[in-house]
Amino acid sequence: MAECIFCKIVKGEIPSAKIYEDDETYAFLDIAPVNPGHTLVIPKHHTEKLGSLSDKQLGHLMHSVNTITKAVEKGTKADATNVTLNNGEAAGQVVKHVHFHIIPRFKGDGLKPWQHGKYEEGEMKKVQEKIGKFIA
Amino acid sequence: MAECIFCKIVKGEIPSAKIYEDDETYAFLDIAPVNPGHTLVIPKHHTEKLGSLSDKQLGHLMHSVNTITKAVEKGTKADATNVTLNNGEAAGQVVKHVHFHIIPRFKGDGLKPWQHGKYEEGEMKKVQEKIGKFIA
Repeated sequence: MAECIFCKIVKGEIPSAKIYEDDETYAFLDIAPVNPGHTLVIPKHHTEKLGSLSDKQLGHLMHSVNTITKAVEKGTKADATNVTLNNGEAAGQVVKHVHFHIIPRFKGDGLKPWQHGKYEEGEMKKVQEKIGKFIA
Repeated sequence: MAECIFCKIVKGEIPSAKIYEDDETYAFLDIAPVNPGHTLVIPKHHTEKLGSLSDKQLGHLMHSVNTITKAVEKGTKADATNVTLNNGEAAGQVVKHVHFHIIPRFKGDGLKPWQHGKYEEGEMKKVQEKIGKFIA
């Protein structure tokens, strides 16, 4: 997609600190890392949301995510990693080209997870049914 | 794994609000949701970290994640979703059985992303090289 910043990175029109590349996948360091070594893994094919990827495309992307996650953990000597996808603008997706974040994590790095809430009596069952309607 | 709470959920020994099940995957509502409809998707096969899954297992799991993400968005009328994996204890993994969180997101729901930092001069190149050593 002509104006997509990630498509431009794939084509080399915008420089990036490349971590990995194959026929279908490109990975590079996030320039504004949550922790150093924070890597983005993208399909070369432009699409905005996870649901637009075919099983084959998704399988290939996740194979790369898996490989790169191990390398990020080893290379940064991380204790763990978060592998996250912001799937849509309201979820924090800034660049509209599907991308997984691989964030190295270190014991005591101070990053706080979102607070978990709870369901009111009967609410869980209702939510379960609402979602269940859309599962074939 | 005998003492794993998610293995017990799969076997029906602990009740859950099931969203989806097939031969290899099980999905259910998180009892302490970040937002209502927060769903966990797990492989039935017990393993702790993403890197232990074969490509076939990962492909199957992600097919399910993709299907369920769409259903969660439709069923909760979410504007978007976060699809996240806490891969190890230092990344917030509590139950040591690999699981993707699908978190429905709504405009203005107030959940804040982690703050992004920046690299010092020359630091990015060094990090890139360190990770690159572990990419075949």
